[in-house]
Amino acid sequence: MRASCILVCFFMFLAASSAVPGKKKQYKPCRELVLYFHDIIYNGQNAANATSAIVAAPEGANLTILAGQFHFGNIVVFDDPITLDNNLHSPPVGRAQGMYIYDTKNTFTAWLGFSFSLNSTDHLGTINFLGADPIMIKTRDISVVGGTGDFFMHRGVATISTDAFEGEVYFRLRVDIKFYECW
Amino acid sequence: MRASCILVCFFMFLAASSAVPGKKKQYKPCRELVLYFHDIIYNGQNAANATSAIVAAPEGANLTILAGQFHFGNIVVFDDPITLDNNLHSPPVGRAQGMYIYDTKNTFTAWLGFSFSLNSTDHLGTINFLGADPIMIKTRDISVVGGTGDFFMHRGVATISTDAFEGEVYFRLRVDIKFYECW
Amino acid sequence: MRASCILVCFFMFLAASSAVPGKKKQYKPCRELVLYFHDIIYNGQNAANATSAIVAAPEGANLTILAGQFHFGNIVVFDDPITLDNNLHSPPVGRAQGMYIYDTKNTFTAWLGFSFSLNSTDHLGTINFLGADPIMIKTRDISVVGGTGDFFMHRGVATISTDAFEGEVYFRLRVDIKFYECW
Repeated sequence: MRASCILVCFFMFLAASSAVPGKKKQYKPCRELVLYFHDIIYNGQNAANATSAIVAAPEGANLTILAGQFHFGNIVVFDDPITLDNNLHSPPVGRAQGMYIYDTKNTFTAWLGFSFSLNSTDHLGTINFLGADPIMIKTRDISVVGGTGDFFMHRGVATISTDAFEGEVYFRLRVDIKFYECW
Repeated sequence: MRASCILVCFFMFLAASSAVPGKKKQYKPCRELVLYFHDIIYNGQNAANATSAIVAAPEGANLTILAGQFHFGNIVVFDDPITLDNNLHSPPVGRAQGMYIYDTKNTFTAWLGFSFSLNSTDHLGTINFLGADPIMIKTRDISVVGGTGDFFMHRGVATISTDAFEGEVYFRLRVDIKFYECW
Repeated sequence: MRASCILVCFFMFLAASSAVPGKKKQYKPCRELVLYFHDIIYNGQNAANATSAIVAAPEGANLTILAGQFHFGNIVVFDDPITLDNNLHSPPVGRAQGMYIYDTKNTFTAWLGFSFSLNSTDHLGTINFLGADPIMIKTRDISVVGGTGDFFMHRGVATISTDAFEGEVYFRLRVDIKFYECW
């Protein structure tokens, strides 16, 4: 009896300890989601298909051509379809909405602030993202800072990678969302 | 004695379990706050009263009229009074400051990034918000991603609803802030 | 034996309790970092040195001079060097990238959304910030909403202060980052 009580105490201790994170390497997501989204920038001629538009630019640049100097200073607003696979024409499960900002003069980097609004039989809710995107690196991590609906109060890290791009008009991002705080 | 120890263990178990959230439906906020804020967009003629201004727009649009296509691509910077009730002329308890971005071409949706700076006898501190706002839906949820002062490290969800609007010049949002992580 | 079991239970209780924060005053950061970053705004003549640029402005303003009315409505995109001390010419340990928005008509305040991308022998990873910056106040607190790499899932509060400024071209911010959630 005493032994079993000690055993219970021991497992209680494990339970309590698990709330105090140790080394980062060993964390496993409590939930994971891989999605793709597709961005077609307005270039003055593709109004019907474009899902995003340049809305701000530095002095001397215009709103139909991404600025020189690695697009430094361009702000793009987007409303991009989200799909489960890498096919632009797959049925969308939601929309990626927000903005990206090109923010370096001597290489391609962006700052991202956007949300996933998911609306499918599997997922209903939003996921909010924020972070630096050093575009030329194969995989980069941004923060998942919150969520609503099915993703109520979730936090995590999203690993993004450029799955494809065509000139300066189309790109597709793969987003591997790993939640480490689930509710 | 053994029984009481087991009982204590049992309650310990409950205490530890409570840190591991189960179904989302049963959560109760640890703190709640209902506030209103009031936005008057600059339209070229109301400089004295305007609390916000269009600062970015897509190609072909200007900065005194919200753009066509459901204002897609407009970025609005705002500094709006916050009140405890739905009266624009009530004494403000702080300012809502940040930006909203219209981000869909075929309906009204916005992306919000802003802060409440509260400065009253009741509240001193800031609350930081982020999220997608599908304006045409009655209530929508955005993330409360952090806070300072009285709201140090708080996280939660804010339910916003359009309490009133007048043409494209004035709108009032009701913000029901529910904190689920209080410090 | 019974006593020791009760003792273990008691410590379990303490461990479980520690997850439930009490008064905010007594919190100590689990990690702290003081860094500086340096911003040189493009004014039409300093293209070689400028680290930031005005990319959006209200009606009537331009992109080489900060707008009237306390710069209300200006959006500035930046890519600023981060240093360990207050010397602009110290070896940078990373880049501060993102945007600030001037958002009040009758005093200087800004809204900040940016990331620190750190890349030195000491730190590799990103820290994501968000919050209101009432510039004229000596120290102001913004939220640290997430991180990646060495700052995986971290949250906290950053106290910023204007360490120096020269006219409207250069300013240096001291950022005292206090993490209260470390992983």
